[in-house]
Amino acid sequence: MTGSTEHTPGTSGPRLGIWIAGAGGDIATTTIVGARAIAQGLADDLGLVTSLPPFAALGLRSLSTLHFGGVDVGYTSLPQTAEALYRRSRTVSRELLDALRPDLDTIETDILRDRALGWTATSDGTPLADTLAHLRGALRDFRERHGLERVVVVNLISAGPTAAADPAQQSADGLAELVATDRRELVTPSMAFAMAALAEGCPFVNFTPNPSTGYDGVRELADRYRVPIAGDDGKTGETLVKTALAPMFLARNLRVLSWEGVNLLGNADGRALDHPQNRSAKIHNKEHVLERILGYAPHAGVDINYVPSLGDWKTAWDLIHFQGFLGVPMTMQFTWQGCDSILAAPLVLDLARFADLAARHGEYGPMSHLAAFFKNPLGCDDLALPSQFERLLDYARAHTVG
Amino acid sequence: MTGSTEHTPGTSGPRLGIWIAGAGGDIATTTIVGARAIAQGLADDLGLVTSLPPFAALGLRSLSTLHFGGVDVGYTSLPQTAEALYRRSRTVSRELLDALRPDLDTIETDILRDRALGWTATSDGTPLADTLAHLRGALRDFRERHGLERVVVVNLISAGPTAAADPAQQSADGLAELVATDRRELVTPSMAFAMAALAEGCPFVNFTPNPSTGYDGVRELADRYRVPIAGDDGKTGETLVKTALAPMFLARNLRVLSWEGVNLLGNADGRALDHPQNRSAKIHNKEHVLERILGYAPHAGVDINYVPSLGDWKTAWDLIHFQGFLGVPMTMQFTWQGCDSILAAPLVLDLARFADLAARHGEYGPMSHLAAFFKNPLGCDDLALPSQFERLLDYARAHTVG
Amino acid sequence: MTGSTEHTPGTSGPRLGIWIAGAGGDIATTTIVGARAIAQGLADDLGLVTSLPPFAALGLRSLSTLHFGGVDVGYTSLPQTAEALYRRSRTVSRELLDALRPDLDTIETDILRDRALGWTATSDGTPLADTLAHLRGALRDFRERHGLERVVVVNLISAGPTAAADPAQQSADGLAELVATDRRELVTPSMAFAMAALAEGCPFVNFTPNPSTGYDGVRELADRYRVPIAGDDGKTGETLVKTALAPMFLARNLRVLSWEGVNLLGNADGRALDHPQNRSAKIHNKEHVLERILGYAPHAGVDINYVPSLGDWKTAWDLIHFQGFLGVPMTMQFTWQGCDSILAAPLVLDLARFADLAARHGEYGPMSHLAAFFKNPLGCDDLALPSQFERLLDYARAHTVG
Amino acid sequence: MTGSTEHTPGTSGPRLGIWIAGAGGDIATTTIVGARAIAQGLADDLGLVTSLPPFAALGLRSLSTLHFGGVDVGYTSLPQTAEALYRRSRTVSRELLDALRPDLDTIETDILRDRALGWTATSDGTPLADTLAHLRGALRDFRERHGLERVVVVNLISAGPTAAADPAQQSADGLAELVATDRRELVTPSMAFAMAALAEGCPFVNFTPNPSTGYDGVRELADRYRVPIAGDDGKTGETLVKTALAPMFLARNLRVLSWEGVNLLGNADGRALDHPQNRSAKIHNKEHVLERILGYAPHAGVDINYVPSLGDWKTAWDLIHFQGFLGVPMTMQFTWQGCDSILAAPLVLDLARFADLAARHGEYGPMSHLAAFFKNPLGCDDLALPSQFERLLDYARAHTVG
Repeated sequence: MTGSTEHTPGTSGPRLGIWIAGAGGDIATTTIVGARAIAQGLADDLGLVTSLPPFAALGLRSLSTLHFGGVDVGYTSLPQTAEALYRRSRTVSRELLDALRPDLDTIETDILRDRALGWTATSDGTPLADTLAHLRGALRDFRERHGLERVVVVNLISAGPTAAADPAQQSADGLAELVATDRRELVTPSMAFAMAALAEGCPFVNFTPNPSTGYDGVRELADRYRVPIAGDDGKTGETLVKTALAPMFLARNLRVLSWEGVNLLGNADGRALDHPQNRSAKIHNKEHVLERILGYAPHAGVDINYVPSLGDWKTAWDLIHFQGFLGVPMTMQFTWQGCDSILAAPLVLDLARFADLAARHGEYGPMSHLAAFFKNPLGCDDLALPSQFERLLDYARAHTVG
Repeated sequence: MTGSTEHTPGTSGPRLGIWIAGAGGDIATTTIVGARAIAQGLADDLGLVTSLPPFAALGLRSLSTLHFGGVDVGYTSLPQTAEALYRRSRTVSRELLDALRPDLDTIETDILRDRALGWTATSDGTPLADTLAHLRGALRDFRERHGLERVVVVNLISAGPTAAADPAQQSADGLAELVATDRRELVTPSMAFAMAALAEGCPFVNFTPNPSTGYDGVRELADRYRVPIAGDDGKTGETLVKTALAPMFLARNLRVLSWEGVNLLGNADGRALDHPQNRSAKIHNKEHVLERILGYAPHAGVDINYVPSLGDWKTAWDLIHFQGFLGVPMTMQFTWQGCDSILAAPLVLDLARFADLAARHGEYGPMSHLAAFFKNPLGCDDLALPSQFERLLDYARAHTVG
Repeated sequence: MTGSTEHTPGTSGPRLGIWIAGAGGDIATTTIVGARAIAQGLADDLGLVTSLPPFAALGLRSLSTLHFGGVDVGYTSLPQTAEALYRRSRTVSRELLDALRPDLDTIETDILRDRALGWTATSDGTPLADTLAHLRGALRDFRERHGLERVVVVNLISAGPTAAADPAQQSADGLAELVATDRRELVTPSMAFAMAALAEGCPFVNFTPNPSTGYDGVRELADRYRVPIAGDDGKTGETLVKTALAPMFLARNLRVLSWEGVNLLGNADGRALDHPQNRSAKIHNKEHVLERILGYAPHAGVDINYVPSLGDWKTAWDLIHFQGFLGVPMTMQFTWQGCDSILAAPLVLDLARFADLAARHGEYGPMSHLAAFFKNPLGCDDLALPSQFERLLDYARAHTVG
Repeated sequence: MTGSTEHTPGTSGPRLGIWIAGAGGDIATTTIVGARAIAQGLADDLGLVTSLPPFAALGLRSLSTLHFGGVDVGYTSLPQTAEALYRRSRTVSRELLDALRPDLDTIETDILRDRALGWTATSDGTPLADTLAHLRGALRDFRERHGLERVVVVNLISAGPTAAADPAQQSADGLAELVATDRRELVTPSMAFAMAALAEGCPFVNFTPNPSTGYDGVRELADRYRVPIAGDDGKTGETLVKTALAPMFLARNLRVLSWEGVNLLGNADGRALDHPQNRSAKIHNKEHVLERILGYAPHAGVDINYVPSLGDWKTAWDLIHFQGFLGVPMTMQFTWQGCDSILAAPLVLDLARFADLAARHGEYGPMSHLAAFFKNPLGCDDLALPSQFERLLDYARAHTVG
């Protein structure tokens, strides 16, 4: 099913840009390394949902036509981060890195390095209006420099603090006012990336737990500029399994008493989530899925612990305590040992391809057909993986060419 | 969702018989105890699929109208087996058993005890034709004695040897000839129960791995007598989880390299499966699900080991070794600790209710809408739990009264 | 090995009192139920270390000579708590409870019910000096009323807040001064139980994580009154396994990078530990074991989460991430599903028997030979289970009669 | 603890040869790669028991003085096998392999490649006497060519069929007679390696489950030639954990009802063990440990399944069903995910060093102090890891220089 034809010469066509906020992170690096490896015929396209047969006739962009750029608050170059992945996580081989070195060096020149883009409520610095103008300029430059037909912006920055709620965030004009009055404590970087992207007509995907596309103001901007958006919080590991398994308990009328999960991870994401203020949005996204799928709220604890030695290898353990016929309690437990970046990276490519397709079809606003990709999907109340995937298949059937 | 109203007076209506082959086993005993407990308001109806909201308006038979009977090769009475469940598995309470004792004593009088019904290819005994006549007579007696509107026959006997394949098994006339010539090595007890049930117009459900409804000859009989049938092999534990999880790997284009499962159990079923000859059908049912769902065959081992101390508490461990983006191998494992009888019993009640409903609607032949209940569903190639359950919901929508 | 001869008539001899602080809890109730069940020949003596062959010739007190009493801040009677154990945890049978009902009713009359004994730093109430006098009086009454040769006091109260550190706690005179000046914020109930016991010449065992025997002042009292003491924090589950497994990694020169543990429990102990202030002592006891055994400190997180549905069935999951030859990382994980009270109760009986034996031999101060029973053993730096158990065997060899 | 000083110049001294039967396998390759990496200061000495502080003053041979040679029935060169380890198991890095390439090329010249050495009961070929002479010659050549002070022979060949039992195997003269009469069906390669080694005065270590040192005839040869021997069956994974955990259940008087284990592995060893005839010795070694440690035989199943995708990464899952106080059943389970070669290789170096030390001290016959290294230790009934390790520490104390 997954024999790749991605690198077939002649499928190139007009180029699509993927501009990543957080381009220096493990997920972004893996995304770029993987896309180039597949484009060069050095890897097959396993893990890409868009490579599955039902999506073959949609006319999705070939991976070889993708062009990468972005921003990051760190100054470690793309080849250095790739090298670190090889050393720490052993997810890429020495040979692959060596073969891709020229590509990575080139792409690095399209990555802005700017510490100031990681502002928080209390940090000083550039006024918001200047930052937004700067970001918009960077997007335009990227598009023009490479003659790109379209640029999709994907947010991959680490989990950060959530802004205090304010009514102004709930309208496009309110957001503009917050920028004009430099209310940096109410406009987070993730919100700014969305605003810059939408203003430039770039489809925007929020793969992080940082609230962004969820604000009514951002959604209004998507409508105003007629741009498709998607989010929040990529569903890659424990929550993916949860949303596949919870419907089983529902379908058998087995009552979930408690569903306790612990997530151990050691990458930069784990370090960021080790701060309770950065963790709240993510834990919320993880916890509410059960109630939404089951129709009642079992006891559901979610721990996220930073365990440096695990690096990018996230280990999650879940205990499900459930009750069946005659009230008898039973248990199921699972352990998930996945590599976060490896699970997330292909989805980033999928989402960029689907966002490009939607834009090509003139669709805009929340791409609810992409619910299967997110813990907290925009425009979709259904959190069960099977029916979310059916929704994507329905979309594909409706858009299949010929 | 599961607040029981099963015992509400006035919902009784005409009585439905459930006649169980293997009525002395743990599943049958739990089924009977549970149905009576719910009917008397001593337990809620957790675990019953038919108690879920989507099935509320189908006009399914109230549990209080069910009447139980059956046959068994063993001579341990129903109250004694219930007592053993309390002692060994702690799945029922002392108080419940005491309250149901009169019911169980009464139902015991409707259970035939006959060692001869457990024949194998090599055993002597009653000619097949006599056995069939005997079984049909017993069914008629049961129906008449209690004024039952309909009797559903459910096969719950332990796993036994599979008969050698013979062309005669593939037609109704062939089966009749095998009976007439007393070819006991080609007609197993499970086949005979099906033949007797169908000839008496009783819907037949094969909850066991023993081949029965799978023979073309049996299906021809179902058509000839216009009776609904369902099977094979109730999906209650490891395979249930497998068919819920495998679609997730498919939906994410994660390649399953190996899916290894080990099942430890200690009840009579486990003892029977400890003999390789009795195990083959069950292992086949467990192994082929992955290939059918994924579209390719990963390495898939299934061990079933008899561990007496576990009793009815089946413990299954599965290791899933899979490959994602850039070919990176990852693993998931799960442990399922369920009580077999507790998981199976409510499904027996569900199947009897659905079979009764189908018969009431004049439907006959394989009830493919019941695929979600079986490891190897009759008349349905789809083995993925989510879409199987959708199929049942579709059926319910089509049959909802008013 | 475990065939019980505990109830043999004639082994009775002079009676030993076990006076439990926290006599209304699950562990105390299970201890009493179990001791009476064994004494009456209704259960065998599995789980009792003192029933192992190496301890047979020590002349340990027969279980049938034990007499129970104690105090509790709750007002649920012993028979009622036993009933709840039957209903919630299914650890005792209906039949056993019925048989022991008269015994439990009698023992209940020896349990003081007094809410005021659960004071905290901020609560009003009886002056400390009065409380101590009251406790000492209760101990004397208990001993005299039943003609007991000796009374061992065992502390089983729930985890509570730790008192602020104060130099006065580090000497016997300082403690006396704190009592005299009613410094209730510096003298916790667990300290008071120890002081009352020692002043009455009763051996004292602290099975809880609440600091008590660890204060130098308490140890000075033990010396002054020449009474044996033991503690802290019974080693019954996850930590037991940790101290059995960690020496294996040491013996193979495998470097433990991270050892992460999560404990889920739903009993009163779990509810108490859900408050961070009550949890600190216990988490400290759990965390420091690895460093002490391995000689270096791996990353070691310990979560304790309250999951009400689990009741007394504690489930712990540990992930051990370790490094071997050539620095290759590997993992081990384990899940422990044990019933806390069932694991703890026989150890309470063991400790009382050993404390009685030590007193009989005129030994006093920390019983370091009992290290194997505790997470944080008094007078013993060795936390590895195998060598701790060797220490107990050495003690037994030295005390074996004849 | 493990900071390596192995490559310190000046510790070289006279050279020790390690001659490996099965030199082309994963364990042998990892042993050689690791020893050279440590000797060159490219890796630290984690995983080596002999690097632990208690063994520092024994005067054990420095790794830089080791010289490797051996035989194998396969023709894949050492550098090629090392390359495959890098690709399949990711246990060594590209950089390490590149650095060691010259070493590996040199060592390859000391490895005999000879398919005929893998004879079975039914295969034709060289007479046994010639084979033995050939092996002895190879050992002499190896020693002389490199001016080695001593050569230790380590058996690492894959599991093979066990020879039928014959009285002649139980004496040195009997074995000689079997060789003289070319009874190839009664003398396996593992026996021949032992005989050749002993006749040449080389200490012999059987790290495999293949019966060899266990024959009385072989032990008589060890005495006759005054050579130390050790075996059988390196304890590296599931059994290692078993022998660390089982004493815990014993020390708490918890009765193990069932201890079920499943081992999944995908390397050459796994492929060999997939044949039931090759598996019996290993399963025997794994099964009898519990009975020997606990003093009674719980239900104990051991499955070994070949799962090619796992390669050298062995995954073992064990379920322990045990009974405590009041007969309450509880469970523990563990999953061990270790890399077989990485776990075994350092032990091979340890055993060679200890065997050399013993020979230097004039010791001969079974080295019972090495019991901790083996599933089925020669000359030692104690199978519990903690006391086996104590035994080794005692030996070290007795032999410590100065």
